Amino acid sequence: MKMLMNVPERVVSDALHGMALAHPELVVDVDNRVIVRRDAPVAGKVGLVSGGGSGHEPLHGGFVGPGMLDAACAGEVFTSPVPDQMVRAAAAVDSGSGVLLIVKNYTGDVLNFDMAAELAEDEGVQIAKVLVQDDVAVTDSTYTAGRRGTGGTLFVEKLAGAAAEEGADLDRVAAIARQVSDSSRSFGVALSACSTPAKGGPTFDLPAGELELGIGIHGEPGRERRAMMTSGEIADVAVDALLEDLRPDGPVLALVNGMGGTPLLELYGFNAEVQRVLTARGIPVARTLVGNYVTSLDMAGASVTLCQVDEELLRLWDAPVSTPGLRWGR
Amino acid sequence: MKMLMNVPERVVSDALHGMALAHPELVVDVDNRVIVRRDAPVAGKVGLVSGGGSGHEPLHGGFVGPGMLDAACAGEVFTSPVPDQMVRAAAAVDSGSGVLLIVKNYTGDVLNFDMAAELAEDEGVQIAKVLVQDDVAVTDSTYTAGRRGTGGTLFVEKLAGAAAEEGADLDRVAAIARQVSDSSRSFGVALSACSTPAKGGPTFDLPAGELELGIGIHGEPGRERRAMMTSGEIADVAVDALLEDLRPDGPVLALVNGMGGTPLLELYGFNAEVQRVLTARGIPVARTLVGNYVTSLDMAGASVTLCQVDEELLRLWDAPVSTPGLRWGR
Repeated sequence: MKMLMNVPERVVSDALHGMALAHPELVVDVDNRVIVRRDAPVAGKVGLVSGGGSGHEPLHGGFVGPGMLDAACAGEVFTSPVPDQMVRAAAAVDSGSGVLLIVKNYTGDVLNFDMAAELAEDEGVQIAKVLVQDDVAVTDSTYTAGRRGTGGTLFVEKLAGAAAEEGADLDRVAAIARQVSDSSRSFGVALSACSTPAKGGPTFDLPAGELELGIGIHGEPGRERRAMMTSGEIADVAVDALLEDLRPDGPVLALVNGMGGTPLLELYGFNAEVQRVLTARGIPVARTLVGNYVTSLDMAGASVTLCQVDEELLRLWDAPVSTPGLRWGR
Repeated sequence: MKMLMNVPERVVSDALHGMALAHPELVVDVDNRVIVRRDAPVAGKVGLVSGGGSGHEPLHGGFVGPGMLDAACAGEVFTSPVPDQMVRAAAAVDSGSGVLLIVKNYTGDVLNFDMAAELAEDEGVQIAKVLVQDDVAVTDSTYTAGRRGTGGTLFVEKLAGAAAEEGADLDRVAAIARQVSDSSRSFGVALSACSTPAKGGPTFDLPAGELELGIGIHGEPGRERRAMMTSGEIADVAVDALLEDLRPDGPVLALVNGMGGTPLLELYGFNAEVQRVLTARGIPVARTLVGNYVTSLDMAGASVTLCQVDEELLRLWDAPVSTPGLRWGR
């Protein structure tokens, strides 16, 4: 597998360096692998910090900016960042109003963010945490006790980020983050494996003519393999898997997310099928986002995330956001 | 090659349908394959129309919206749209102030836009045209007499779009578009071939361990094949190829563009190398954009586009834009 890189050991630091050069509105500490919005800490504002293994870009570093995260920590590819990074990030964004840590549910991330929370509190930073565990495909997967955190992370970061930007206090921002996490569900499919720089080739074997339903964002096993299906058939399976678990009695936000290697042309076509199924099931869709947001390197495939919203969450979704990966205005 | 689709014949119309459902701010005529901003025609504003074969998303349909295109026409994958689509688009966006057609230099597109211009003028629409021919890799390629139009199209659409949004007249908008086209140069590399839905597999053969320098956005042959190179070596070749042709005596805009299948992590790392070479050559970079903007389905690889700017063009670059694929505010 050919990759656009120098050497595998430098992929993450090269990327952070290139990100710094493209985004003067961010402060990128390449050595410590922490990305911070330039105006942090913002006086009186709760700070939002997330992070995780690299390879899911634009998540998380691409979601740093006004209206979303204040800082993100980048681990090695598919590997949790370490507590020291998280403590640095929390210290950089704490204005005295406290910091919310947004943690995807993988064992390494959970342990490291727990330790970071203790260390940051020892340094006088008030900390709240929210765990994102939205993937309905499996429980207790390769790197996870319980459900994996995937596409729902985008909704948690955007909606809690908007609340923090408006001046909500730490309890309120954390409550919104938990509401969003509780109201979000995801399901993904892989048409191909991803290749990591360290391995230099596919991380798992997916035969020609088959797809994997319920895939994780690191290529962790899903529910089952089947002979290749049409996008309509995949949408039926994915949406029904979500609706077995989330029974929205109101409108939803829909994220039709590419895993990285699937062209936008196909993602938009898949969105048409996802919306067809949602309409057939009587679920009103308030807003739809289509694109590559929570990726798995070059994996071909897509995931669907639904988040049930009330008027307040919908207002927070529409609030301005200005990050490299997600940006809209008034 | 597995694709997220129903049947190859429906890929483009399925995508347009899915785009309509995700973007209520656009009017998508799925039958005629024309995407128009919802508030068109905007009174007193010059209309901007572009289009081309599908498979390069977000180009062109994803660049429709305030501050960029007023309408785009989508052809079949890698196939020019037909004059009827272009005439419909021009009629939909003409406020009486005239319409600029932005044409990538491929034989089919040029012929069809020429015919559309005549037909639209017969219907009383004042038309201007600009040809984008920024790819320095080769002349007289598979589908092209002269140079191919690639990444520079984004700069032409953004900068001319900003001028039109500010109320510049047709002569002025066309002059800016031509200045941008004349000031833009691109060079691309492929690490893998792309697969079209109709073919169901790679459109050309690129052996393991080799890359192609100077690739076109449809997989047309480039300058040469070489044994796989590091991103630093690729940046040296690409930037030097650009600077053999464009000798900027002032700042440039830099687009480090993914071909579709290369992860953002790698694109940012490549950007670091591109900026290293530009700095070494003494070229000041005013703004940098990194991401998948002018793609070639699932092709792995990247291109670099430079556009020399004066103060006026830089101001137009920074002006607000609100489209699915490119968006920033004041």
